[in-house]
Amino acid sequence: MAEVTPWEVSGEVDYDKLVAEFGTRKMDGELGRRLVSLAGEDHVMLHRKFFFSHRDLDLVLKDYESKKGFFLYTGRGPSGPMHIGHLIPLIFTKWLQERFKVNLYIEITDDEKFVCKKEADWDHIQKAAADNMLDIAAVGFDPERTFIFKDSEYIKNVYPLMLKVAKKINLTTTRAVFGFNDQTNIGLNFYPAYQIIPTLFEKKRCLIPAAIDQDPYWRIQRDIAESLGFEKTAAIHSKFLPPLSGMAGKMSSSQADTAIWLTDGPKVVRNKVMKYAFSGGRATVEEHRKLGGNPDVDVAYQWLSILFEEDDAKLKKLHDDYKAGALLTGELKQVLVDRLNEFLAAHAKRREHAAHALRQMTHEGKLARKMWETNHVE
Amino acid sequence: MAEVTPWEVSGEVDYDKLVAEFGTRKMDGELGRRLVSLAGEDHVMLHRKFFFSHRDLDLVLKDYESKKGFFLYTGRGPSGPMHIGHLIPLIFTKWLQERFKVNLYIEITDDEKFVCKKEADWDHIQKAAADNMLDIAAVGFDPERTFIFKDSEYIKNVYPLMLKVAKKINLTTTRAVFGFNDQTNIGLNFYPAYQIIPTLFEKKRCLIPAAIDQDPYWRIQRDIAESLGFEKTAAIHSKFLPPLSGMAGKMSSSQADTAIWLTDGPKVVRNKVMKYAFSGGRATVEEHRKLGGNPDVDVAYQWLSILFEEDDAKLKKLHDDYKAGALLTGELKQVLVDRLNEFLAAHAKRREHAAHALRQMTHEGKLARKMWETNHVE
Repeated sequence: MAEVTPWEVSGEVDYDKLVAEFGTRKMDGELGRRLVSLAGEDHVMLHRKFFFSHRDLDLVLKDYESKKGFFLYTGRGPSGPMHIGHLIPLIFTKWLQERFKVNLYIEITDDEKFVCKKEADWDHIQKAAADNMLDIAAVGFDPERTFIFKDSEYIKNVYPLMLKVAKKINLTTTRAVFGFNDQTNIGLNFYPAYQIIPTLFEKKRCLIPAAIDQDPYWRIQRDIAESLGFEKTAAIHSKFLPPLSGMAGKMSSSQADTAIWLTDGPKVVRNKVMKYAFSGGRATVEEHRKLGGNPDVDVAYQWLSILFEEDDAKLKKLHDDYKAGALLTGELKQVLVDRLNEFLAAHAKRREHAAHALRQMTHEGKLARKMWETNHVE
Repeated sequence: MAEVTPWEVSGEVDYDKLVAEFGTRKMDGELGRRLVSLAGEDHVMLHRKFFFSHRDLDLVLKDYESKKGFFLYTGRGPSGPMHIGHLIPLIFTKWLQERFKVNLYIEITDDEKFVCKKEADWDHIQKAAADNMLDIAAVGFDPERTFIFKDSEYIKNVYPLMLKVAKKINLTTTRAVFGFNDQTNIGLNFYPAYQIIPTLFEKKRCLIPAAIDQDPYWRIQRDIAESLGFEKTAAIHSKFLPPLSGMAGKMSSSQADTAIWLTDGPKVVRNKVMKYAFSGGRATVEEHRKLGGNPDVDVAYQWLSILFEEDDAKLKKLHDDYKAGALLTGELKQVLVDRLNEFLAAHAKRREHAAHALRQMTHEGKLARKMWETNHVE
């Protein structure tokens, strides 16, 4: 049985079941086409249904069409270095910002990462946060329209509004929504108030691109936002990037070998993919040539499908050749290795030059300056 | 039955029972004499046993004698204007600061006042906080050794340390200590972490002069402080100033007529005392002259005893004359009225000139400047 909470994703995830359980809506073809049409271009993660579920995305598009507008919000828990799975929602978020020219708020949840694990160390989290923020800036958001903030640094500006939100949430709710119990510490129990805050940064509808495990926060937000004079947030939910080890769970920082880190060099990437990537291939080359492989469970193929091979025709050829046995596992993996290494090299290069953009997004850009001058009370 | 929690004090309070129930220690004669001897003078509130209970005051005095030193901490919940009962622990705190030349931290708990009551209004609390801080500054603390801070303003400097404290407190604890339940909002449930923070401002022992209803916070502090590398806090507990209406409960902001507000003019004070002060006198003058009054239940006499008549001989004469029937209720009340009006006039005058001292205590004094430069992490 799969378990999906903001703190753990394990097991084989049945995404249709999650949509039913969480009460979200599947992205249907029509809504997807409307989004693409308004954006003026398609995106591989939409196209391949990696973003598969939503709340009120139709209303967001309506607000966009009526010139009321909307804004974007996503975040990162700085528990350690970032792997490739962490970048995925950010890449899609960047595309949304570019296409719709909207403000984007990125919350770095150092407080949550500290209170959610007993052994978490504050200094370690602060170092991870600084490191992560540079990776995030390297994604290339609009420096005048993006505000990246660390919870512990921005707390003074939001604390009164957090208290207003906190007053609307009781222990029955955090018990029901997050499974908190009497052993839960009061810091973790308070934290949901902060994760809700950025949805209230503007008096417009907020759209949150994030993996579906974060949805419980948005359920609470949608219950209380209107009573505080704000809009219910919208969300667009992604699946999880499967770990190298197979299609169950999500890529996790606690299993270092099954993740590709943003700092992994070309040889490390090659070794990891060759050694750990769960394969849909056969036990021997002879068998594979004769019977063919299974791309549906092959992690290399899945990664190519989610992000690294945007060209439908090329992807189809990989799929068909693999299934037919014409393409061997090692060859398919090599395709992924090459794409991954190109991607990581480009990221590393952007990261080298991201310090200035980061300063703009945290302090000096147009939106950042405005946010530091704002005391959020209502 | 009396109920005593940080949010409510009702009924006839049995202070001996509270000492047993809370697990504090009564101030015995020897400890009181040691405090007076080190202070170099006596204080009426010690002398009359208004401060009646403590935790580790003996260790505080030992730290003072060994030159390790200690520091003071008290606070105020800015729910509205202040009455005379609110000033009492502050007056005693000022005396302690003067006699021992120590740092003092005064927490203005605007966050707690907002989350503890459903109908509480943020703007109202902010106005009350500004008003209260001027009254507090008027008490006359040492502007270089005092730091007055509002929770919502100082939050950024303490948030990491608050999270460390919060991580040590779970829902079982807040349920047991404060009686929180599933309907308690997550803001109120988090708040105890903040009230504990100032006890960790220095790596010395903290001494908290406050009414005994605040003790539950210090119990939690004493359970967790050492594991965080700090000292268990000490406390010196006062009784409650009885309301005009009689010896039960404490003077309360929600019953305006039974309190003397710091802004009450001479006529208002006279009218309130004459009309509402519960009297130990007899029904008629004739009966009173014949049978005498009961000073033990007479609120005017009790107030004189706690603060307003420092001279033992004069107090004894009031007591004996009242008991003998020589002093009438109206005459006894007039003695209190005169003292109250002198006290309030002096306070009002000091308050008029307190703005500069307040700026020092909040921002510009030696301790305040140091505190704004400090990020409390450990």
